[in-house]
Amino acid sequence: MVDPLIGIVLGSSSDLAIVEGADRVLEELDVPFERRIISAHRSPQAAHDYAVSAAERGIEVIICAAGKAAHLAGVVSSLTTLPVIGIPIKTPDLGGMDSLLSTVQMPPGVPVATVAIDGAVNAAILATQIVALKHPEYAPKLVHQKEKLARGVAEKDEEYRKEAQ
Amino acid sequence: MVDPLIGIVLGSSSDLAIVEGADRVLEELDVPFERRIISAHRSPQAAHDYAVSAAERGIEVIICAAGKAAHLAGVVSSLTTLPVIGIPIKTPDLGGMDSLLSTVQMPPGVPVATVAIDGAVNAAILATQIVALKHPEYAPKLVHQKEKLARGVAEKDEEYRKEAQ
Amino acid sequence: MVDPLIGIVLGSSSDLAIVEGADRVLEELDVPFERRIISAHRSPQAAHDYAVSAAERGIEVIICAAGKAAHLAGVVSSLTTLPVIGIPIKTPDLGGMDSLLSTVQMPPGVPVATVAIDGAVNAAILATQIVALKHPEYAPKLVHQKEKLARGVAEKDEEYRKEAQ
Amino acid sequence: MVDPLIGIVLGSSSDLAIVEGADRVLEELDVPFERRIISAHRSPQAAHDYAVSAAERGIEVIICAAGKAAHLAGVVSSLTTLPVIGIPIKTPDLGGMDSLLSTVQMPPGVPVATVAIDGAVNAAILATQIVALKHPEYAPKLVHQKEKLARGVAEKDEEYRKEAQ
Amino acid sequence: MVDPLIGIVLGSSSDLAIVEGADRVLEELDVPFERRIISAHRSPQAAHDYAVSAAERGIEVIICAAGKAAHLAGVVSSLTTLPVIGIPIKTPDLGGMDSLLSTVQMPPGVPVATVAIDGAVNAAILATQIVALKHPEYAPKLVHQKEKLARGVAEKDEEYRKEAQ
Amino acid sequence: MVDPLIGIVLGSSSDLAIVEGADRVLEELDVPFERRIISAHRSPQAAHDYAVSAAERGIEVIICAAGKAAHLAGVVSSLTTLPVIGIPIKTPDLGGMDSLLSTVQMPPGVPVATVAIDGAVNAAILATQIVALKHPEYAPKLVHQKEKLARGVAEKDEEYRKEAQ
Amino acid sequence: MVDPLIGIVLGSSSDLAIVEGADRVLEELDVPFERRIISAHRSPQAAHDYAVSAAERGIEVIICAAGKAAHLAGVVSSLTTLPVIGIPIKTPDLGGMDSLLSTVQMPPGVPVATVAIDGAVNAAILATQIVALKHPEYAPKLVHQKEKLARGVAEKDEEYRKEAQ
Amino acid sequence: MVDPLIGIVLGSSSDLAIVEGADRVLEELDVPFERRIISAHRSPQAAHDYAVSAAERGIEVIICAAGKAAHLAGVVSSLTTLPVIGIPIKTPDLGGMDSLLSTVQMPPGVPVATVAIDGAVNAAILATQIVALKHPEYAPKLVHQKEKLARGVAEKDEEYRKEAQ
Repeated sequence: MVDPLIGIVLGSSSDLAIVEGADRVLEELDVPFERRIISAHRSPQAAHDYAVSAAERGIEVIICAAGKAAHLAGVVSSLTTLPVIGIPIKTPDLGGMDSLLSTVQMPPGVPVATVAIDGAVNAAILATQIVALKHPEYAPKLVHQKEKLARGVAEKDEEYRKEAQ
Repeated sequence: MVDPLIGIVLGSSSDLAIVEGADRVLEELDVPFERRIISAHRSPQAAHDYAVSAAERGIEVIICAAGKAAHLAGVVSSLTTLPVIGIPIKTPDLGGMDSLLSTVQMPPGVPVATVAIDGAVNAAILATQIVALKHPEYAPKLVHQKEKLARGVAEKDEEYRKEAQ
Repeated sequence: MVDPLIGIVLGSSSDLAIVEGADRVLEELDVPFERRIISAHRSPQAAHDYAVSAAERGIEVIICAAGKAAHLAGVVSSLTTLPVIGIPIKTPDLGGMDSLLSTVQMPPGVPVATVAIDGAVNAAILATQIVALKHPEYAPKLVHQKEKLARGVAEKDEEYRKEAQ
Repeated sequence: MVDPLIGIVLGSSSDLAIVEGADRVLEELDVPFERRIISAHRSPQAAHDYAVSAAERGIEVIICAAGKAAHLAGVVSSLTTLPVIGIPIKTPDLGGMDSLLSTVQMPPGVPVATVAIDGAVNAAILATQIVALKHPEYAPKLVHQKEKLARGVAEKDEEYRKEAQ
Repeated sequence: MVDPLIGIVLGSSSDLAIVEGADRVLEELDVPFERRIISAHRSPQAAHDYAVSAAERGIEVIICAAGKAAHLAGVVSSLTTLPVIGIPIKTPDLGGMDSLLSTVQMPPGVPVATVAIDGAVNAAILATQIVALKHPEYAPKLVHQKEKLARGVAEKDEEYRKEAQ
Repeated sequence: MVDPLIGIVLGSSSDLAIVEGADRVLEELDVPFERRIISAHRSPQAAHDYAVSAAERGIEVIICAAGKAAHLAGVVSSLTTLPVIGIPIKTPDLGGMDSLLSTVQMPPGVPVATVAIDGAVNAAILATQIVALKHPEYAPKLVHQKEKLARGVAEKDEEYRKEAQ
Repeated sequence: MVDPLIGIVLGSSSDLAIVEGADRVLEELDVPFERRIISAHRSPQAAHDYAVSAAERGIEVIICAAGKAAHLAGVVSSLTTLPVIGIPIKTPDLGGMDSLLSTVQMPPGVPVATVAIDGAVNAAILATQIVALKHPEYAPKLVHQKEKLARGVAEKDEEYRKEAQ
Repeated sequence: MVDPLIGIVLGSSSDLAIVEGADRVLEELDVPFERRIISAHRSPQAAHDYAVSAAERGIEVIICAAGKAAHLAGVVSSLTTLPVIGIPIKTPDLGGMDSLLSTVQMPPGVPVATVAIDGAVNAAILATQIVALKHPEYAPKLVHQKEKLARGVAEKDEEYRKEAQ
C-alpha cells in the first residue's frame, strides 16, 4: 500500500456526503490519500496531533472541510508549514457565508487556500496540482482531466445545438 | 495584590484601543483582571497553555477579542469549561461581519458568549455579571452602573428638551 | 422539587422545536431550569415582570430565544443584572441574519451573550458553565460532556478510517 | 403654545445630528412636535412611561430613531396603538444593516413603519401625512412640499442642461 | 356598502397568498378596504391613475406589496401625499433583501412606511392605527387586538409550563 | 448641431461627479448625447414625459443613474421599448448594495441593463456598443478604445517589470 | 433559414431550464437566435473562439448565462465590441449573490449589461430592444408585448376585484 | 540571476500597494519571483499568453490579485494546471465582497486557492509552502518565519502585561 500524500480532514461526519467529491477525484487521478474526522472544537487535541505530525508522515497537502465558525483549516495551518486547503461547508441558515468568511479571512502569517462553498472537487484538484510539482507523474493526469472537462462541455454543446434545430 | 477573576486576551496588539473599553469598565467596577496578547493562529501554543491553565489559576471568565477569521474565543472555549466571551473586532473591508460570524456561529458543544462588534464595554459588564453570581460584592456595583446609565440618558433628555423650547 | 437556576424564555411557541435542544442538555447535566413563553412585543408586561423578578426567585442565568427583530434578550437584559443569553432563531427569509444582528449588536451598557443561530445546545452549556462557577457540582459534568464530545468525534473518525481501507 | 402632535424620541444623544433633519421638516410644515432622548435599553422605564402616556397627552404619531440592535421603536410600538415610525441609524461597522433589520423585521401584531437608514426627513413627512388625515390644514402644506421637490429637481435639470451646451 | 378607507395594491398575482394576511386583519377589525393588482413596471399607467385618484375617492392609506426591485410603493408615494405602506415580498433567490432595500431606502421627500418582509399582518394593523386617529371607532378594536395578542402568548405560556412539570 | 442618440438621466444632482465619467467617454467616442436631471420620486411627471418621448426625439439608448431605492431606470424602462441602462450609485451606508438590487432585480417584462456600482464609464461604452449596431461609424472607435485599454495595461506592465529588476 | 441575430451561451447544461425562458421570448418575438453551451472555465478556447467570431457571423447581441464565480459574460465582453448581456444564475448556497456580483461588477472598459438573477426573460427582451434599433420590424412586437403585459395585469386585477366583492 | 518560481500578476496598477506585501515576504524568504500587470478583461490576450506559457518557463505557482468582478485568477486557472492563488482586492463600495465571491466561488474543475481580501502576505507564504515541497531549502525558512510570528506575539504580550501592572 502506498503512503498517502494528501490528508482529508472533516470537521464533522455530517460533511461526508459533500467531501466524497474529493475522494472520487483523487481516486480517479490515482493520488494516495488518507481521510479523517477531527473537530477543531470538539477534539482539539486530535486536531493538534494530526497537524504537527502530518509532514513527518509524508503528507504534503492537508484538505480541511468544516462549516459554521469553521476553524479547522486555520487551526491546522497554525501548526504546520504544509499547504492547507479549506472547504467551507454550506450551512442551513446563512448558506455557508459564515463558513466561507471563517475559512478565508485568515490574518497575515497563517494562510488557508480556500475553495468554493462545498467545493470538494476543486480542493482535490488543487491538492493534486500542488503535489504534481514534486511528483511529475500526476501532471499528465491533470492535463488529461482538463481536456476531459473541455470535451464534456463540447459534447453537451453539440447536443444542445442539435436540439435547437 | 488581588488574584484576577477575569482574563482578557487580545488576538493582536492592533485591537488594544478597542479593548481598553473593557479595562475601564472593570477598573470602575473594581473587578481584578489580567490582560494578555495571544494569537490563536500565530502563537497557538500560548493560546493552548493559557486556556488549559486559566481555571486552576482562579480565572472565572475569559474575554477574547479577535478580528477577521476570529478563532481565538473558539480555540480557548474548546480547551476549557469556563465561560468564554468573544468580542468580534471591526475589520476595514467587511466591517466585522467576518469576525462576528467566525466568533458566534460555533458548533454545538463549544459555546462562545458573543457580544457586539467592538463591544468591549459589554464584554466587561457581562463578565462581571457572571462573576457576581459567586462573588455577590459585585452585584450592587452592577445595579449602580445600570442606574447611572438611566440617569445619564435622563440628563441628556432634560438638556435636549430645554434646547427645544 | 429543586428551585430552577436557569430560566429559558421563548419569544414564540413556534421556536419550541429548536429550544428543546437546550432542555435536553440541561436535563442531561441535571441543572434545574424553568421554561416560559413570553413575547417582548406581544406580552411586554409579562417580559418586564419576568425580568425584574427572576433574580429574587433564585434564577441565575436567563436564556432568551427569539427570531426576526429579536428584542426579547435585550429587553430582559435592560431590566436585570443577571447574565442573559440570546439564541437568535433562524428566519425563513433572511436565514436568521435579522435575529442575529438584533440580538448581538447591543449598545454599550446592556450586554446579551449571543450564541449561534438556533444554537440552543450551546446556550444551555454556556448557562451551565456560568452557574458552575458558584455551584461547583456542575463542573465535573461539563468536563465529562467535553470528553464525551471528543470521544464521539474519535469514534466517528475510527469508523471513517476503517471504511476508507 | 400648541400641544405637540408628533413625538420624536432618540435612542441616544449621538443621533442628534441625523434627527435634526426631521425637526427642520416639521418646523417648515408647522406641525407641533416634542422631542426626547430615551433609550430602550439604558432607560427602559422612561421608554415604558413615554409609550403608555403618549396617546392621552395628545401625541398622534411617535418617531423613534435608534442604531445597532435598535429596539426603541419596537418597544414603544408594543406599548401603544399609535402609529410608530422607526428611523434606523447608520452604524460604523455594518452601515446600519443591523439597525434596519432590528427595526423593520417586527413580528406579526406589532408594526413599526420603517423609513430608510438615517431617513429622518422622510420620517417627518410620513408623520405629517398621517396627522394630515385628521388635521386637514396640513394637507396643502404636503402638496406644496411635493411641488417644491419637483421644482427643485426641474431647476437643477435646467442648470445642468445649460452647462451641457 | 361602505367606502373603503384603505387600498391594498399587489404588484403581482403571485403575492396573493401573502397579502391575504392583511385582508384577514382588516376584516377582523372591520375596516373597509379595496384591493387591486397593479404593477409599477408592467402597468405603469394603472399605477399612476390609482395613486393620483386614491385620495379623492376617500382612501386614506395605501398598502403596496411587491417583490424583487419593488418599486410599487415608491411610485405610488411619488404621486400622492397619502401615507403609503410597503410590504417587501420574499424572493426565492435573495430572501427578500432585494425587495426590502428597494422599498425602504427611499430618498428624502418621498417616504414609504416599510414593514417586515412578507409582513402583511403588520401592514394592516399599521394602516388601521393610522385611520383610527381620524376614525376613533377603530381605536378600541386595536386595543382589543393588542390584548388578544398578550392573552394568546399567556395561554401558550401556561400550556408550556404545564408540560414542563 | 447633431441630434443626441443617447440620453443620460441623473436621479439627483449629487450624482454628477460620478456620471461625468460617462460624458467623457461619449465625448471621446464622439457620440452625440443629451443630459438631464430627473427624479423618479421627486419629479415623476418629468420622468414620465422624458421616457415616453425619448424614442420619437431620436434617442436610441437611455442611461439612468440613481442611488438608494433606485427606481429611475425601472420607471423609464416601464414606459419605453428603448434599451435602458442603469447605473447604481454608491450609497454611504450600504455601499450601493441597495442601489444595485433596486436597479438589477427587475421583474420579467421590463429589463434594465445594469452596470457596476458607479459604473458610468461602462454605461457609456455599452450605450455606444448598442448604437454602433445601427450606426457602424462608431464600431471602429470601440475597437480602437479596446486596443487602447490593452495597450495601457501593457505599458503599466512594462514599467512594473522594469522596476522589479 | 434565417441567420441568427442573437447568441445565447450557457456556462453549463444545468442552466438550461432557466434559460429556456429566453428561448420562448425570442420565439414569440420571432427574432432568430442560436444557442450554445460554452464554459469560460472548462472550455476557455471555445469561449474565445465564439466571442471573436460572433460579430463577423452576423450576431449582434450575445446573452451569457452563468452561475457562481460567473465569468462567462465578462470573458466574452473582453473579446468583442458587441453588447453582451449577462444572466447571473441562482446558486444553492448564496442565492445567486455570487453570480450577480461576478457578472455586474465589471471594471471600467469592459461592460456587461446585467439583468436580474435568473432573469432570462428580460435578457431576451433587452436583446430584442437592442436589435430593434437597427431592425425596426421588431419594434412593434416589443410595443405589443408591453401592451400584453399591461393587459395581463389588468385582467388579473379585474378577477381579483370581483373575488373581493 | 535565478529563474522565478512564482509569478505575481496584478489585474491593475492600482493594486500595487497591496501586493507589495507579497513581494516583501518572498524577498525575505528569498524565493525568486517575477511580477506582471495583466488584466483579464482589458488585456485578455496577454492573460492567455502568460497562463499557457508559465509552466514551461519554470513558474510553479501563479498569484493573481484582482478586484470587483475579479476574473483574473479564474481565467489563468482555466488555462494552466499549475496551482493558482487568488487575492481578492478590497473595493470602495462593497468592501471586497464582490472580489472575494468572484475569486473563490469557482465551478468544479478549475480551482483557485483564495486567500483573504487584500491577503497578499498570506498569498506569498502559501506560494512558498507549495514550492517548498519540491524545493526543501525553503522549508526551514517557513518554520523560521512561523517561529518569528509566535515570538512577535510573545513580545507584544510581555510589553502589554508590564504596562498593566
